[in-house]
Order: sequence, then C-alpha cells, then structure tokens
Amino acid sequence: MMKFPRRIALLGSTGSIGRQTLDVVRRFPEQFHIVALAARQNIALLAQQVHEFKPSFVSCFADTPIAEEMVRTELPEAILGEEGLLGAATHAEADIVVAATSGLMGLHPTLAAIEAGKAIAIANKETLVMAGALVTQAAQRAGVPLLPIDSEHSAIWQCLRGEENATIQRLLLTASGGPFRSATVEQLRSVTVQQALTHPTWRMGQKITIDSATLMNKGLEVLEAHWLFDIPYEHINVVIHPESIIHSMVEFIDGSIKMQASLPSMHLPIMNALAYPTRLNCADTGFVRELHWADIGKLSFEALDITRFPCFHLALQAAKLGGTYPCALVGADEEAVELFLTGKIGFLDIAALIEAVLEKHQSVQQPDLSATLEACAWARRTAQHLCKRYA
Amino acid sequence: MMKFPRRIALLGSTGSIGRQTLDVVRRFPEQFHIVALAARQNIALLAQQVHEFKPSFVSCFADTPIAEEMVRTELPEAILGEEGLLGAATHAEADIVVAATSGLMGLHPTLAAIEAGKAIAIANKETLVMAGALVTQAAQRAGVPLLPIDSEHSAIWQCLRGEENATIQRLLLTASGGPFRSATVEQLRSVTVQQALTHPTWRMGQKITIDSATLMNKGLEVLEAHWLFDIPYEHINVVIHPESIIHSMVEFIDGSIKMQASLPSMHLPIMNALAYPTRLNCADTGFVRELHWADIGKLSFEALDITRFPCFHLALQAAKLGGTYPCALVGADEEAVELFLTGKIGFLDIAALIEAVLEKHQSVQQPDLSATLEACAWARRTAQHLCKRYA
Repeated sequence: MMKFPRRIALLGSTGSIGRQTLDVVRRFPEQFHIVALAARQNIALLAQQVHEFKPSFVSCFADTPIAEEMVRTELPEAILGEEGLLGAATHAEADIVVAATSGLMGLHPTLAAIEAGKAIAIANKETLVMAGALVTQAAQRAGVPLLPIDSEHSAIWQCLRGEENATIQRLLLTASGGPFRSATVEQLRSVTVQQALTHPTWRMGQKITIDSATLMNKGLEVLEAHWLFDIPYEHINVVIHPESIIHSMVEFIDGSIKMQASLPSMHLPIMNALAYPTRLNCADTGFVRELHWADIGKLSFEALDITRFPCFHLALQAAKLGGTYPCALVGADEEAVELFLTGKIGFLDIAALIEAVLEKHQSVQQPDLSATLEACAWARRTAQHLCKRYA
Repeated sequence: MMKFPRRIALLGSTGSIGRQTLDVVRRFPEQFHIVALAARQNIALLAQQVHEFKPSFVSCFADTPIAEEMVRTELPEAILGEEGLLGAATHAEADIVVAATSGLMGLHPTLAAIEAGKAIAIANKETLVMAGALVTQAAQRAGVPLLPIDSEHSAIWQCLRGEENATIQRLLLTASGGPFRSATVEQLRSVTVQQALTHPTWRMGQKITIDSATLMNKGLEVLEAHWLFDIPYEHINVVIHPESIIHSMVEFIDGSIKMQASLPSMHLPIMNALAYPTRLNCADTGFVRELHWADIGKLSFEALDITRFPCFHLALQAAKLGGTYPCALVGADEEAVELFLTGKIGFLDIAALIEAVLEKHQSVQQPDLSATLEACAWARRTAQHLCKRYA
C-alpha cells in the first residue's frame, strides 16, 4: 500500500476531472502533493495551477503554433507535445498518475505510466474501451492498480471491497438517462446542441455530456466495467435511475445486492481513487454535500429503451465483436460528436454515422498499440468522409 | 476461517429463523451439517426435524409437565430444560451456534457457546440489547466472531466488508414503518391484535411482529447495532423505507454511502452468516427471488415520527441511560406485548406500560449475568403488576 503523502502526476489538469482533482489536493494538502501537471491548451489556467501547486514538471500539449508561442511566453519551463505528456506520465517522483485527458490522448501516456510502475487513477474511459486488453495486461505485468474515477465504476469498486470476484453474479450500472430520457424519437430528431449540452444531474465536459445524451457514454461504461472488473458482457446490465443518487450496484451469487450512493459529485470518486484503500475525512466540512434521505423522498428505476438510444446498442455490439471494433467505435463517436457540436449533423445522425462506420470496419484481432490507434484514426477519417451524406 | 462443511448447533429450530436456517442447510447439504437441534415445545416439528437432519444431540425445553411427558414419548433421546439448551450450545462437534431462540432464553446459552469457542450466528436481538457488553467482551476474549442474522445488521455487516471501522461516519438502519406507518394517533388507539400482526413486508414470529408495529423492534436494533459494530448511539440513525428493499446503509467519513438490498428474505442474511466470508451460489435456483429494478419502479424514504412511535424513543432512552435499563426495557416489552396479544391492554398501552416500568427502575451499573436476568425479571413482574391500571 502506498504511503501518504502521495505524489500525483495529473494528466488533463485543466479539464473537469483535472480541476476537481486539484480541489481534492487543495482540501487535503497533507495527503497529496502535485509533482507534475499536464494540459492541452488552456494555458492561462495551467499557468495559475502551476503557480498554486508548484509541480516539478509541467507539460502543455499546445497543438497549434499560436498555443505553442503562448506557452513559450507564459510557461517557459513547460515541455511541449507528446514528449511533455509522456514526461509527466512517467515522472520519477510520482506515485499515482491521474489519467484525466479526454478522448484518445490518454492511451499512450497511460501505458507509459503503467510501465513506469505508477498506480493509475483512471478517468479516461476511451483508454480502456479501445485498449482494455493491452492496459489491463500491462497493469497486471507491472503489478500496478487501476483505480477507477468514473462514478459508476467507483461505486462498483467500493461495493467489491472485501468480496471475492468469483462471487459476483452481475454488475448493474445505473444511468440517469440523460436529458432525453423521456423524449420520443420524433423529439430526438430535432434536438439542438444546447439541449443536448444540458445534463439533468451532472456537469461535465462537452464530449461526455453529448455521449450521456445519446447513452453512448453508458455503452462505453459497460466496456470499461468489463475490463476493470473482468466480468463477461452478459453479466453487465444497465438500469435507468434518473436521480443519479445510486451510482451503481453489484449483485452477488447469493442474491445479495450492494450499491453505493451519494449526491452527484466527482470529488467523491476522485478521493476514493487517490486515498484507496482508506477514506478521507470530509465529515462536517461541506466538501461533499450530505445526503438526507427523507428530503430525497423517492428513488426511481426504469428499463433502458435501446430503440430510442441506438448508440448504447452499437457500443455493446462493438464490444461483443471485439478486435478493433471498439477502437473504431471510439473514433467514429469522437468525430460524430464533433460534427454534431459544430452543427454539421443532427442528433440522431450521430448513431447512424457511427453505425455506417462500423459496417465498413475491417477488424484486426488482438491489436497492438499502433493497430489500436490506426483503427481509431481510420474511423475518424471514415466518419468525416461519410458525413457528407447528412450535410 | 472455518472450513466447509460447517457443523451447526441450532437453538430455536422450530421458530421462524430456525426453520429458515434448516431451509438453507437443506439447500446446501455439502456445506452444512446439523449436529444439534434445540427447541422449546413444538415437539411434533422438532421430531420431524430430528428425523430429517439426524443431529447427534437433541434438546427440548418443554416447560410444562404435558410437554415434558410428550417429549419422553416422541423424542426419548432429547435432553430437557436448561441442561439440554446449554448442551446444544456447547456441543463438542459444533463450529457455529445459531442463536435463534426468542426473547430472554438465548442469553445464557449464547454466553456458554462463546466460552466454548463457537462462532455465534446471532438472530436473537434481546441477547445483545440486554447484555451487549458481556457478550461482546466474552466474544473478544474467546476470539469468536458474532455473525449477525437480523437483516439490517447483515446489511451493515456486508457494507463494512473490506472497510476500516474508523472510516464509519454513521449507520443508517432502514425501517419499513410497519403496518401503522401512516396511522394517526387516534387510529393507533383502536388497533386490534389482528391488525398489528399483519406486517406489510415481513412474515415473522408474533413477538417481533408486534415489536415491528410499535417500532420497538427498530429501537432494539439500534442497540444491537451499537454493540455489534461498536458505534456510538449518536452515529446511528433510522429512516423509514416502506418497501423493505434496502436493508440498511453505512455512511463513511468521505460522504460515500454503501447499502445492501434484496427482496425481503431471511434466507439471505442466514446464508451470509453461515457462509462468511464467502457467499453461496443461489444463481438461477429460485432460492432467493431475483430483484428486477425496473419492475420495482420506486423506492421511498421518510423521516421517522417518534411522536407516534414512543416505543422507539423509549428504547433509545434506555440505551443512553445504560446499566440495567435495557434489560428492564426488554422485560417490560416482553410482558407488555404478551398482555396486548391476550387482549389485556390496548396498542398504545404497550409504550405507556414500558415507560411506567422504566420510571420505577433502579439501574445497576455494569451488571453481570445474574443482575441482567434479575433486572429483566423484575421488569416483567412490575409490568404485570402495573397493567392492572389499564385493565
């Protein structure tokens, strides 16, 4: 077990999970030290974070010449590009790497961090969806733990403490159902970007908010759960739970069900990952809002209607087909969401476009890192090409 | 950890928990063997059980001459009275003693079983309520586990697997609210025995069903939880949850809440206690009914209104006063419930009578076994005497 204080390299420090990770570090300065920060291109915020947390290592991806120029002025010590990201991920002083970059960027640094023997607090689900076999095998070889940050997976992980894996009957992921839980197909056809960006219970980045509206996010979470907990897909189910109070459940072979609950908060799963196997004391601090059951009144549950949420179904199909299908799914979804956000396709076109890409996909079995990334890049290009149909 | 098959001495084999314990043994014959059976006076059923499970030792309390006579004919091998009960509790072949006698009878044999080094699966809450300090200290000295069978305590115990006790913020016991959850004080005044014996979610023995209707049972469970999990009373709360699906919860210092759920079933907590720390495989057997969340639809929660359920409040008062107050509470409640069941007092008189007994009680600090039993017997006598007020 790692000692405290634990030294953290934070990849994706300016995103939603990154900022909330820093809230936790700010709240528990005795327990955690930031030794490396890596961001993409929110240079102003990164500079503030560097000023506050004084890491030994700073990395900024800065993928445009203007951003690069700005980094050289504002953060002359920052290492640019892939070199910087890998440098943060493998920094000698770090005990834990928080992988909170968005989308595909997290995969290579996560694998590098695992090989460098770091514990991985994993917030980037694409990494496990695309390369679950690579990542979990590498972690097993290196003997490092994968500590889930996604609230559903954190819930399952908490329910599994002190239990044997062989006694799991099934995992039950809860889903808020997103903003269109009760919408008809007709209504879904005319959804605006603004409507899709308004999540009823969670405030998150844009990509994941759209993925939550299409329920692609829940599909990706099924794949993530499969890899994190080594449970076959047919033993992972989803139930709609609009209040987002119960974050997920585990059913055991004796019929007993354990579930984890809190008011929606990402601070809690972040704390759980960083402090595992102990828990941090937030009692009476207001840092995590207290849940009063009598005020909550009711919790509700409904079946998931996959006919209205085809993205969920596509994710499960890709999962069961295996090979590079999940990589193609992630690439096609990244592109489709971007096309939707920029007004180029409609809400229902997201699923149609992903399906069209998957139909064209030539899967590779047991892909290595380069085949994984190539399948994903192919899917992005193919989605871009096919989207002209919808323009 | 105990090996399988585990050898069980079952005290109270003809009661509700006793019969359900035998269901579990019947379902898992490879895992469990019955080595001793003890009952009070349901001689016909005990004889059937002896025929089926062929224990090495049979005990029948038989507290009337007629019962004694009947035992001599039907079960000539049975050992009578206290000697038989203690013999079953300390039987050399037993690994686990299931303490499922009702009321006060369980205390002495439970202490004897602990001293004989047996693991105790404890279904008799009066034992811990009256003599929590004696029982938990004896168990600690003997190094034997106390395995809870009450569904609420089993839930908490399951939620605590793999967690450190120091990280518990509070325990939250759920309560169905019983048949009179929504009744007015006026309606409570005229409750009949039949109404009070009709529990909305659980089928149990008569005494515990009445205790559930007055919420005395929930008060006793708070004391039981205090002793089992070593948590101060001010960190144990109760919430009304009419569906009895969530059996209890634990809130941790980081704000995370874990809860355990199932359709109401005592087989599940019995299996948990007997199989700990593993779980028995009931998948697809129908032995434990599967819970379908979408069919359940809603779970609801309300605050407990202690003004309508004064028995709950009396239990907490006795708990906080300590000494022999909890023993007097148990004795007064046993008598009051019997007086109600035989039509001698009304439903609201149960609390009034217990309160009158507690007001007269002269508590002894740190009572030993005899002071514990004496306080309880005194309370029964006093209740009998005082009840003439209500006749």
